[in-house]
Amino acid sequence: MEFSPLVEQLIESLRCLPGVGRKSAQRAAFHLLERDRDGANELANALQKAMAEVGHCQQCRNYTEQDLCAICQSPKRSQATVLAVVESPADLMALEQSGQFNGLYFVLYGHLSPLDGIGPEQLGLSLLEQQLAKGQIEEVVLATNPTVEGDATAHYIAEICSRHSVKATRIAHGVPVGGELEYVDGTTLARSFAGRTSMS
Amino acid sequence: MEFSPLVEQLIESLRCLPGVGRKSAQRAAFHLLERDRDGANELANALQKAMAEVGHCQQCRNYTEQDLCAICQSPKRSQATVLAVVESPADLMALEQSGQFNGLYFVLYGHLSPLDGIGPEQLGLSLLEQQLAKGQIEEVVLATNPTVEGDATAHYIAEICSRHSVKATRIAHGVPVGGELEYVDGTTLARSFAGRTSMS
Repeated sequence: MEFSPLVEQLIESLRCLPGVGRKSAQRAAFHLLERDRDGANELANALQKAMAEVGHCQQCRNYTEQDLCAICQSPKRSQATVLAVVESPADLMALEQSGQFNGLYFVLYGHLSPLDGIGPEQLGLSLLEQQLAKGQIEEVVLATNPTVEGDATAHYIAEICSRHSVKATRIAHGVPVGGELEYVDGTTLARSFAGRTSMS
Repeated sequence: MEFSPLVEQLIESLRCLPGVGRKSAQRAAFHLLERDRDGANELANALQKAMAEVGHCQQCRNYTEQDLCAICQSPKRSQATVLAVVESPADLMALEQSGQFNGLYFVLYGHLSPLDGIGPEQLGLSLLEQQLAKGQIEEVVLATNPTVEGDATAHYIAEICSRHSVKATRIAHGVPVGGELEYVDGTTLARSFAGRTSMS
């Protein structure tokens, strides 16, 4: 026994969302059918429009429906000499929200992972090299995740930077602000210790 | 700083799904944009079709895109004299999957809850009365949830049944099969004790 064909199709389609299994999809489908048909129709429109029109910025690979994203277009930033390399648009947004950085970005959409078939080409590193070759960028901040793969990717890009005589820096790893030393893992503490800065 | 307008719109629209906040919506949007544009387009189509076409069965109120749902149409069941009243299509599906019931259903879509403005009319009880008035139903099994509201709803419907001289029964409450007495709550144990059946 199954639900009616259209309801079944809706439940199965909802499973394309990350972390949504059969039960959650069923719950979502019933919620939309019973309480939010308008929201569901809006969602359908938003999905169609976004999938058809959203592409990547030709300069930084961030999502945009135009040729250049809002950051690359911004006159305040177009003269920037610092470029931050991040793994995902969500990382870019997190950096933006910290309000500490006013330069340009480059989004990799992942990290080097040869076993999964993700090499320099998939990360758009040739586009990054083109940017560096223009000579405007003076520093590349490698803001990939502090994981083994993120570190490897940072090292790889740092080599590209040195070939173009561009300074490469890595974001600092250490104890999170507001955290307690007692609960911080050993590797982080070791990195935090090795990266200690002078106070006097 | 926000994402591009279409991406923002997609993220906001995804929040109509139950239990999806800003962060989950963002994660889902990026997942679809990056890895599953086909799935997203299918989802958009499924949403539009389901919202436009899926209505309620005229006999049992289950979701269907036809006048009568598959269960009410089934020749095996059309002669059934037992009708199970459930709170949601998911409950109906759970009963169906247990394979123990081969009668008809009636879906309330909720339970009596005067404070939320949910009265007999919202639960379609006049339609249920019409069914009972036809005289074919001999027993109504009240399979609402074993909560205060579910019990109250069951009592209310039992009174309707008695007005139509139809037998009303309630599903048994007790210790779940495979459970351990030690971990069962007191109310359930009390109901289980009160409802004990003879073994000899």
